[in-house]
Amino acid sequence: MTDVIDEGALRQLYDDFAAASLKPLWTEIGNLQPEFPQPDALPHRWAWADLLPLAERAGDLVPVGRGGERRAIALANPGLGGQPFATPTLWAAIQYLGAGEVAPSHRHAQGAFRFVVRGEAVWTVVNGDPVQMRAGDLLLTPSWHWHGHHHVGDEPMAWLDGLAIPLVKKLDASFFEFGDDGIEDKATPEQSRSERLWAHAGRRPLSALENKPNSPLMAYRWADTDAALAAQLELEDEGYPGVYEPGHAALRFTNPMTGGDALPTLRTEMHRLRAGTTTSTQRSTGSAVWQTFRGRGTAELAGQRFELAEGDLITVPAWAPLRFTAQTQLDLFTFNDHRILEVLNLARGGTEPVRP
Amino acid sequence: MTDVIDEGALRQLYDDFAAASLKPLWTEIGNLQPEFPQPDALPHRWAWADLLPLAERAGDLVPVGRGGERRAIALANPGLGGQPFATPTLWAAIQYLGAGEVAPSHRHAQGAFRFVVRGEAVWTVVNGDPVQMRAGDLLLTPSWHWHGHHHVGDEPMAWLDGLAIPLVKKLDASFFEFGDDGIEDKATPEQSRSERLWAHAGRRPLSALENKPNSPLMAYRWADTDAALAAQLELEDEGYPGVYEPGHAALRFTNPMTGGDALPTLRTEMHRLRAGTTTSTQRSTGSAVWQTFRGRGTAELAGQRFELAEGDLITVPAWAPLRFTAQTQLDLFTFNDHRILEVLNLARGGTEPVRP
Amino acid sequence: MTDVIDEGALRQLYDDFAAASLKPLWTEIGNLQPEFPQPDALPHRWAWADLLPLAERAGDLVPVGRGGERRAIALANPGLGGQPFATPTLWAAIQYLGAGEVAPSHRHAQGAFRFVVRGEAVWTVVNGDPVQMRAGDLLLTPSWHWHGHHHVGDEPMAWLDGLAIPLVKKLDASFFEFGDDGIEDKATPEQSRSERLWAHAGRRPLSALENKPNSPLMAYRWADTDAALAAQLELEDEGYPGVYEPGHAALRFTNPMTGGDALPTLRTEMHRLRAGTTTSTQRSTGSAVWQTFRGRGTAELAGQRFELAEGDLITVPAWAPLRFTAQTQLDLFTFNDHRILEVLNLARGGTEPVRP
Amino acid sequence: MTDVIDEGALRQLYDDFAAASLKPLWTEIGNLQPEFPQPDALPHRWAWADLLPLAERAGDLVPVGRGGERRAIALANPGLGGQPFATPTLWAAIQYLGAGEVAPSHRHAQGAFRFVVRGEAVWTVVNGDPVQMRAGDLLLTPSWHWHGHHHVGDEPMAWLDGLAIPLVKKLDASFFEFGDDGIEDKATPEQSRSERLWAHAGRRPLSALENKPNSPLMAYRWADTDAALAAQLELEDEGYPGVYEPGHAALRFTNPMTGGDALPTLRTEMHRLRAGTTTSTQRSTGSAVWQTFRGRGTAELAGQRFELAEGDLITVPAWAPLRFTAQTQLDLFTFNDHRILEVLNLARGGTEPVRP
Repeated sequence: MTDVIDEGALRQLYDDFAAASLKPLWTEIGNLQPEFPQPDALPHRWAWADLLPLAERAGDLVPVGRGGERRAIALANPGLGGQPFATPTLWAAIQYLGAGEVAPSHRHAQGAFRFVVRGEAVWTVVNGDPVQMRAGDLLLTPSWHWHGHHHVGDEPMAWLDGLAIPLVKKLDASFFEFGDDGIEDKATPEQSRSERLWAHAGRRPLSALENKPNSPLMAYRWADTDAALAAQLELEDEGYPGVYEPGHAALRFTNPMTGGDALPTLRTEMHRLRAGTTTSTQRSTGSAVWQTFRGRGTAELAGQRFELAEGDLITVPAWAPLRFTAQTQLDLFTFNDHRILEVLNLARGGTEPVRP
Repeated sequence: MTDVIDEGALRQLYDDFAAASLKPLWTEIGNLQPEFPQPDALPHRWAWADLLPLAERAGDLVPVGRGGERRAIALANPGLGGQPFATPTLWAAIQYLGAGEVAPSHRHAQGAFRFVVRGEAVWTVVNGDPVQMRAGDLLLTPSWHWHGHHHVGDEPMAWLDGLAIPLVKKLDASFFEFGDDGIEDKATPEQSRSERLWAHAGRRPLSALENKPNSPLMAYRWADTDAALAAQLELEDEGYPGVYEPGHAALRFTNPMTGGDALPTLRTEMHRLRAGTTTSTQRSTGSAVWQTFRGRGTAELAGQRFELAEGDLITVPAWAPLRFTAQTQLDLFTFNDHRILEVLNLARGGTEPVRP
Repeated sequence: MTDVIDEGALRQLYDDFAAASLKPLWTEIGNLQPEFPQPDALPHRWAWADLLPLAERAGDLVPVGRGGERRAIALANPGLGGQPFATPTLWAAIQYLGAGEVAPSHRHAQGAFRFVVRGEAVWTVVNGDPVQMRAGDLLLTPSWHWHGHHHVGDEPMAWLDGLAIPLVKKLDASFFEFGDDGIEDKATPEQSRSERLWAHAGRRPLSALENKPNSPLMAYRWADTDAALAAQLELEDEGYPGVYEPGHAALRFTNPMTGGDALPTLRTEMHRLRAGTTTSTQRSTGSAVWQTFRGRGTAELAGQRFELAEGDLITVPAWAPLRFTAQTQLDLFTFNDHRILEVLNLARGGTEPVRP
Repeated sequence: MTDVIDEGALRQLYDDFAAASLKPLWTEIGNLQPEFPQPDALPHRWAWADLLPLAERAGDLVPVGRGGERRAIALANPGLGGQPFATPTLWAAIQYLGAGEVAPSHRHAQGAFRFVVRGEAVWTVVNGDPVQMRAGDLLLTPSWHWHGHHHVGDEPMAWLDGLAIPLVKKLDASFFEFGDDGIEDKATPEQSRSERLWAHAGRRPLSALENKPNSPLMAYRWADTDAALAAQLELEDEGYPGVYEPGHAALRFTNPMTGGDALPTLRTEMHRLRAGTTTSTQRSTGSAVWQTFRGRGTAELAGQRFELAEGDLITVPAWAPLRFTAQTQLDLFTFNDHRILEVLNLARGGTEPVRP
């Protein structure tokens, strides 16, 4: 805007705008509608070696129970002003439960998953169905499903929780309800009932033909995830298609009713790189969190380089170019908000050349 | 129509209609648009004990090879005038292959499945992917996929083929192409490559995110089908949902990309009844074929009663009321055209009271 | 099949097959699964100049009323053995109603449309909603909607009826119910209630947010169809996209709830060619009927040439190459079964080079 | 959380959390996951009588041109800390253009609409297609479509702009590109080319059968919107269905390709109340803006009462109960983010009894 003649009148106008709860576009269009995504969130790494001792201290000092509900410690992205948000849309937290502890039942609009780095002594009870949590498993607690956790072993256990808390807060769509203080069903089966019904690829119970937006499968077990990734790499060895790119196996966790994402707000995937592999560089709208499950490697992210050991987490802001290199075989879990961008026709990205 | 005055003029009119390739509605509306489905197809049973010896004789007399393509013997519904059609839309045949024989590669617009009653010595090679055929397995050869079969064992093998040949003929949509006379890949792996990629419930390869109308999974193995049915009945024993109705477990074979039917023209399902169970009586638009896989029981179908032993097949015409009673645990495979009725908004039926 | 040794044994086998209601594939695979569609239906033209006098004679001789229901005279494709079928899936008939006559109310599973070549004196009452039938209009009576017609003018009126009677018969999915002998609502409004609610492009009543497979719009008026076609050609004149191909405007009648076909079993379209235009040659799986609405031209269809005057009809068998040439501006209505082929993944065709 | 023993150790733990970019859930779960939506946004009214003079002063003082791009003055919800956001997801602004002015061409990821309260002297050129903006019209400029505006009349013009700027900012999905400084096409047709192709209910150009997420129709004219609303009320007078509730006609602007929302990020609707009508009280997740187009009435919103005159705007925070009462016939335009909630399975609400 040029050629404004009367500075005083303009100042008065802006004051009058403010008094009338108005704000001009022309003074901040570059901030509101930048040429490229300009995320506040920063690339950042949280080392498991730092997280776990802090969680253990919380385990000693802070009881888990009704009110606080969960001993969950959230990643607070350094770019987001101290809010407990890993990215503008994603919540990622380490939840810690000691031997014999119970996290009481509740339910909320925010769908959630758990991803387990180590351990197998906790059962989460989802709408009354006891689901063991074991290393490498992805466990779901979809929107408005009751869930509580109880620990039946000797060693404390820590895992990753993911929810779209920041997004749901932004959308003002939160609902929350307290459940029983105890655990409805203290059985400790190896398989949940949801798995007994649904963990059969391509076989749909005739009693459940109506599609639901959330997956009916509450546990995606590591044994099958591992087998699926291994098969992709073996097929590559044999000269057949299957991997995502050379040396890089990958799968998305899906709702067997629809083949789409397991949860409507969170995309979840598992990736495996052969030792020595470097992925293509990709970037996209929307943000992500990655966690190393097994192995060692590095992430090159928007000009920074992060070493990755087991359990380490990084946040990936929108449009930040990212590639991984595996020192050993490297298994990476990731979750992101890309489905949201897709259904709103706002998704862009891929391996297109990175513009400065 | 009443009060027609001039019979001679009317006869002349009808003759003139015929000469002009025209035909009145009013003389045959009841046939063209009956109040209820009036299928020509009949309820009928083919006993495996009759079918197998005939197939064996064909094995002795008729070589399999290019031209005839397959030693397949089709159910010819007694109501359909000698045509090789199990129902107006469905083809069902016993295919028989002897030790060392090869059914040469071809492809066609008609999607197909195989369901195996007994044996495990044949591999079908689907678009170059060798797929073992074992008892209880459902094997797919979707539309326009190359496929040939070869027998690597000692004992001849017979199985059920299902296709929508009559429907595709009616729709004049047949395409057919001959392939190599031999078998592209004589490997005999236990698992096909399609299974290695896709038989992981809720885990979708990132390399295959675009949906296809046909399932990418070429083999639905009996071990997993059996486990899925058993789990439904165990859940019933424990007081939880899962079965289709009391004592009656059932699943539909689906495309893991979409959760919908594995093939766009043929719905395929597996049912298990506890010994002593009688199902509800159901009827619907569209026709079906059922085959006993294991066990003994009876079908009551439109006023007839058929005893069912292993391998026996029955045809179910449209709108014919059907219920099963299991003497032993009874495993039933079925395929039908109900998806077609659904996508055309022509499906009706269920357990509604049977009108005479 | 070669090298069959024992002709007698083979004959005996075939006899035993027949006795057991069985039929071999190998003797008729070429008929069952031809390399290309081999339709029985023939290309054929019915001239309006022949049809109308025959309909008029029927008007004199055959009363319309309960039982016969409709004075409809069906195109009987000369290749289909005298059945009243325009193609294997499509019914096309001239319906004729005289001054003051009433075709009583009924409903059936087969969805129907009317397309009017001339006149405007008949109202069809669809589920109680009176819909005037005027030249160039497409009128719908979707599956299981009550409908009766009554004539309030002086001159008899004839129009085209289209239904998927042959397909629904094949699928054994017919249901039929008689309604009142009279007409529920003898009002003769210019606009039906369905139009008042739905004939507003891109404006959906908030009271009707649930999608239905049938269009809620019972009348697609010529005035708007004509304007839409004219606009495409004007845009072409101005150098902008819009036409289907040079000189060839075309639109499909759709369900405003979904943007898909107006009826689930019948695709309906209107085409306009500039005088002098020759279309590309196209062929596809599935069959079609075309009717000239206004103008004169020729159809070249599978090696035959048909002159087309107002009201003339032709049948297009599957895979028959077809192109039109317009002598004057030529408006063509068509209906076909292509949506059925599409949802079954059996559609092929287009402008691909014609193979002999 | 109770029974914390060592306050000092806990303080140290929280400090160490902060140092490690971590934050506990248990101290703020009530804020993060409230029992009901607790929006920061407030119910607020902006009177047109206040807005217009401010816009006129901006017209005198602030030139429109490259850089500032648009003379748009945004509603800044008093609950949102001075940000130019009507609600957490929605941007709503008055755009003002004087005689002869040009707002230069640009495009951005954020889809937009314009809704015109008064005037008709501006053309917006969308991807090269000149679209007149007239009172009561809804005009679209979907995501990544070039658009510029130019004023060809004598009287300045003001209208409402709606975009999902806050949401797209949250999602870090903004892209923006400058176009030509001038206007590509200065023609001033009454109808845009998009209307000529697409403003024909239920008639889809055969040249455009592939669905797109944005409506291809750039202008929804008031004449047709008005007729659609009038028809619903007339049908109610005659005793037929059509209105949304008694005395309350309503329609949603949809994409004719799909029947779904015209834009993937913004739901747009027009409502008409008869004089004297009070609507039901509704509330839902997600936020909205309403603008009075014609007439006078009141909004009762979360315990507040706002008088509404022509052009007045109100913001509706999530879960705030809302009902309108019409003094005269009252035409209301509204836009909201409810589609987003729906596709994320986060939508709740309706006329359910309001909980305190």
